[in-house]
Amino acid sequence: MLVVMNTDAAQADISAVIERAESLGLTTHLVRGAERTAIGLTGDLQPVMQDHFIQLAGVQDVVPISKPYKLASREFHPQDTVFDLGGVGVGGDEILIIAGPCSVESRTQLLETAEAVREAGAHALRGGAFKPRTSPYSFQGMGEEGLQILAEARERTGMPVVTEVMEPDKVPLITRYADVLQIGARNMQNFPLLHAVGECQFPVLLKRGISATVDELLMAAEYLLSHGNRRVIVCERGIRSYETSTRNTTDINAIPVMRGRTHLPIFLDPSHATGHWEYVVPIARAAVAAGADGLIVEVHPRPAEALSDGGQSLKPERFAELVRQVRAIAEAVGRRVPEIG
Amino acid sequence: MLVVMNTDAAQADISAVIERAESLGLTTHLVRGAERTAIGLTGDLQPVMQDHFIQLAGVQDVVPISKPYKLASREFHPQDTVFDLGGVGVGGDEILIIAGPCSVESRTQLLETAEAVREAGAHALRGGAFKPRTSPYSFQGMGEEGLQILAEARERTGMPVVTEVMEPDKVPLITRYADVLQIGARNMQNFPLLHAVGECQFPVLLKRGISATVDELLMAAEYLLSHGNRRVIVCERGIRSYETSTRNTTDINAIPVMRGRTHLPIFLDPSHATGHWEYVVPIARAAVAAGADGLIVEVHPRPAEALSDGGQSLKPERFAELVRQVRAIAEAVGRRVPEIG
Amino acid sequence: MLVVMNTDAAQADISAVIERAESLGLTTHLVRGAERTAIGLTGDLQPVMQDHFIQLAGVQDVVPISKPYKLASREFHPQDTVFDLGGVGVGGDEILIIAGPCSVESRTQLLETAEAVREAGAHALRGGAFKPRTSPYSFQGMGEEGLQILAEARERTGMPVVTEVMEPDKVPLITRYADVLQIGARNMQNFPLLHAVGECQFPVLLKRGISATVDELLMAAEYLLSHGNRRVIVCERGIRSYETSTRNTTDINAIPVMRGRTHLPIFLDPSHATGHWEYVVPIARAAVAAGADGLIVEVHPRPAEALSDGGQSLKPERFAELVRQVRAIAEAVGRRVPEIG
Amino acid sequence: MLVVMNTDAAQADISAVIERAESLGLTTHLVRGAERTAIGLTGDLQPVMQDHFIQLAGVQDVVPISKPYKLASREFHPQDTVFDLGGVGVGGDEILIIAGPCSVESRTQLLETAEAVREAGAHALRGGAFKPRTSPYSFQGMGEEGLQILAEARERTGMPVVTEVMEPDKVPLITRYADVLQIGARNMQNFPLLHAVGECQFPVLLKRGISATVDELLMAAEYLLSHGNRRVIVCERGIRSYETSTRNTTDINAIPVMRGRTHLPIFLDPSHATGHWEYVVPIARAAVAAGADGLIVEVHPRPAEALSDGGQSLKPERFAELVRQVRAIAEAVGRRVPEIG
Repeated sequence: MLVVMNTDAAQADISAVIERAESLGLTTHLVRGAERTAIGLTGDLQPVMQDHFIQLAGVQDVVPISKPYKLASREFHPQDTVFDLGGVGVGGDEILIIAGPCSVESRTQLLETAEAVREAGAHALRGGAFKPRTSPYSFQGMGEEGLQILAEARERTGMPVVTEVMEPDKVPLITRYADVLQIGARNMQNFPLLHAVGECQFPVLLKRGISATVDELLMAAEYLLSHGNRRVIVCERGIRSYETSTRNTTDINAIPVMRGRTHLPIFLDPSHATGHWEYVVPIARAAVAAGADGLIVEVHPRPAEALSDGGQSLKPERFAELVRQVRAIAEAVGRRVPEIG
Repeated sequence: MLVVMNTDAAQADISAVIERAESLGLTTHLVRGAERTAIGLTGDLQPVMQDHFIQLAGVQDVVPISKPYKLASREFHPQDTVFDLGGVGVGGDEILIIAGPCSVESRTQLLETAEAVREAGAHALRGGAFKPRTSPYSFQGMGEEGLQILAEARERTGMPVVTEVMEPDKVPLITRYADVLQIGARNMQNFPLLHAVGECQFPVLLKRGISATVDELLMAAEYLLSHGNRRVIVCERGIRSYETSTRNTTDINAIPVMRGRTHLPIFLDPSHATGHWEYVVPIARAAVAAGADGLIVEVHPRPAEALSDGGQSLKPERFAELVRQVRAIAEAVGRRVPEIG
Repeated sequence: MLVVMNTDAAQADISAVIERAESLGLTTHLVRGAERTAIGLTGDLQPVMQDHFIQLAGVQDVVPISKPYKLASREFHPQDTVFDLGGVGVGGDEILIIAGPCSVESRTQLLETAEAVREAGAHALRGGAFKPRTSPYSFQGMGEEGLQILAEARERTGMPVVTEVMEPDKVPLITRYADVLQIGARNMQNFPLLHAVGECQFPVLLKRGISATVDELLMAAEYLLSHGNRRVIVCERGIRSYETSTRNTTDINAIPVMRGRTHLPIFLDPSHATGHWEYVVPIARAAVAAGADGLIVEVHPRPAEALSDGGQSLKPERFAELVRQVRAIAEAVGRRVPEIG
Repeated sequence: MLVVMNTDAAQADISAVIERAESLGLTTHLVRGAERTAIGLTGDLQPVMQDHFIQLAGVQDVVPISKPYKLASREFHPQDTVFDLGGVGVGGDEILIIAGPCSVESRTQLLETAEAVREAGAHALRGGAFKPRTSPYSFQGMGEEGLQILAEARERTGMPVVTEVMEPDKVPLITRYADVLQIGARNMQNFPLLHAVGECQFPVLLKRGISATVDELLMAAEYLLSHGNRRVIVCERGIRSYETSTRNTTDINAIPVMRGRTHLPIFLDPSHATGHWEYVVPIARAAVAAGADGLIVEVHPRPAEALSDGGQSLKPERFAELVRQVRAIAEAVGRRVPEIG
């Protein structure tokens, strides 16, 4: 951490910063420039410490120089994390594709979709039973009945099931049916939920908040990891920018950035990241070209009748085309989309 | 809702849109232009319906034309909502000022702060007992002990207590001690929490999410109102933009925008909206000048020792100056900051 | 400047950074922490130097710690810059109000508007003769004829004229008619224009780019000041954020932030910053409450007939109300809106 | 265009909107809903007309429904624009790669770089002679001498030269030396420059402004096209978002979005879009995977000594790796990176 002093800071101001730092058990390093002085601090730094200095007299700025996460960091864990999901080695050379509807709407709809995406090459099934909806008047999901239908689809297709958990209390219920817990963008910083999911030791798909930085996403992953849960996937799903031609702005840069900063597997959700079905296939290709380890894609047999996210859902035949095109890209970057079954 | 057709849409495409709309019980209105045709839809529109049309052949765009919230809307409730809080008529001519530390850190710190802000003119006391923190290694709050200290401060000063609730399960505990429940920015779309808080019928201070639109904030308020809870305050607290010279960007425009769209009282939190104590007083003045009904301000007797948010906390004497300056602005706009006690 | 090394940087990497720094004539200061090392650099730092280090082996990050502007900076020029404009001391205790139409559309329209805003209390007249328009098919301004009409309005009302200059070549023409040159948001980083306007020594109203940071705005002011032109006003006019309920997001924080960083007068344009006439008056009040030194406001006698920006223009009677309300706010903060004539 | 009325708009308000529309020569279409009425407008709509209605009594909102550009639009020109540049068919099946330093710094540096990038597989040479720099104290380019060096490099390597033009006056000078004129991000809405470049009929590489929408970029292209200049490339180069881990946020979605809206060739600049050399290769791969028609990449033989943009420049050997990897991606999507020479 670096405490930057004003050009007109008095020697007494500088001494006060040094005293405060020493009282906190830190070591100080004086950097005297022609125009101003800065004080480097080393030792057992906590994020909160920035605030300990910013209001001292003469202080202009306090600059952190270390990332605040450890367990999620590549510096402290250089090897890639790789774990098995439905027979695919997530985070290794293989690309995992999760597909399914936004919401479970009925037994027929879900089973039809599950079989279609399996046929097309998906490795895991997504489907929401509890839905976070901006409007209280929108469809809120089928609840436990939806979970039962998902479990039945797993029986029939062999695909592991990924579904969203929205509150700590529901973790026991959802882990009875699901294989991977999804934490949605709106809940990335729902800390009681992160604690509960961290403790359950199930694999987690952690989505980036709609305006979270990469480092905030990795801090949220740190909550999960700090409970000993090592099977965490971080997932880019588009961020909010000023551009309105798409629902969100895919932060494709986040893929190589996170690759450098973390050892965790990195996925991308091209459905939410664009919000329009026409853009899903090219962005899925771009994700794998940029280095993503997997995709999660919304598919619906009849998008125009979907109770949620119909505008961004692919029809099964277009999803099959996505798998074919993504497979070609994966090979071009020395990876592969495994064929299952 | 308006369905805009492509320039080259066939008559059959247009007929298909009309049939779909009629099958949904909607009334259609054809708008034929020189270059393209659009179909206006009226009736019992649900948000989900947009997706029913966007994938039909020939459709270019679907434009919603009515706000998706009702109970929160000024159109459906033209009179301002006004309710009493600690003797102040919130949402009327009076400006309410809530002050206190970010976190309850100890009995001494909280009681000292409570008395200082009361002395300086505050009407209600804020203080966090359960803290949402970006890092799992940061101070997470004193929990129930913190609530007990807040209740003791209310006994001593007469000020109602505002404190944050982070999960549905904690609502019964927190309502034993608090007078107003705060829903923090990170939880603005934590829907299980909105349901639980809506049901408890306590007054609510609902903070805008860091990248929520005004309409999304009002939709979150709609969740609370739909449970019959009418005492809801919406609170601007800064949004995330590209500008890095402040922690957040105060969206001062949101005050007159929300004034036009909702009847609910509108507050501003200048501490989070700026993130730097030097900017808190001018932004508090600006908020009241723009029409805010109240403020929530972080105050700490020794900010450099605060366990959270020290950089944006005011010392009590500066807070007293804030009250004086805000009072002058209130009078300039025909309102007043009541003197209590 | 601080060069932060990776945790696994070799001693040779550190030595290489030190050698590079010394070869550039800089002094180095080693900061060795438990986990990583950083090297503080002092001396004659140029912005470009950051790039000299970022690609060296073992370097994680390079953090600048000084602002890159000097002449615009309050550190190097602690006293506020104050200069006269039409009898008002800009940057001192007095608040200057500039008003007029977006574009000069006709002699009748401009003279009618000029007299109405003068009557209502404006101190200077705005009006565009050369208009930057997003569409090539929109009205592009009356050109020199517009300038002649502006000069006539000055004769009649005594108000100095503020008008936009869009290209270096037009500086001689525009300075024949205008008193203050406006550089629009789109041209904030049009460097040939900044050079030409800096050289002409006329007062300048420099608008913040739609996504410029505060520091970039002050760097653009530095271009003007580096030519010896000292009469520069910096003007907040709204930035682009994700929020779509207003045309732009007024960055009200920028007013106290710039107050701390620069000695130059600071204005706000509530018309562009909101884009809707209903929000102009409350945001004008907020600007002065936050510490702005002046306002520039769009006024049109018949907004519904305006050839540009009609939606954000005030009618003269509403502008008169703005002046009255802003005057009350100015007095509440110990300043005043002078009555002219 | 659709004029949406308030729920309580009177019949007279509606009639006034209709009269206004008819007086403007438009055709009106009444859309009467249960709660409100809207009026669809068709005919010769100009962007300015939105403002003609927004201030009429009872009007709530005015919604445009057609894109404001024509010549740039795919609706009006369904076939892709394809033109030759240095033997490559830009906009067709072939991917064009432009490479070179940010700035021409010396004859030696430029010729060395030109030969290295040619060797590595580049098809065209970039290099700035006139540089837009945020700070007046930064290197501003070599001017005409830089252009002469670029022309010499073309002689030696056969590669066409792409260089930036910053002001209308310099168009005649730059067209004496260059083959393609680049309009930089800061000048995307420098309208006098767009007019001058549109008239010169040289191929243009038009970069997206740092916070321009896709539609604003296509409107800027419309300025060029409206002068009869058909050889226009639009170039994504990263937009400004809240994320600070990269210099800009690559808007990869813009590639398929623009593919749908325009017939013009679409490029991506991975150097500016990321700002860090480590991320340039993966983002170049992603661009081509998403459908880009070409790339423009910064290369410098010794990035740590570059006078500008060193942090984002590739060394020649890494650029050669970029060409190899991009070629594999191009083949995976059915296109090719031609081998020249």
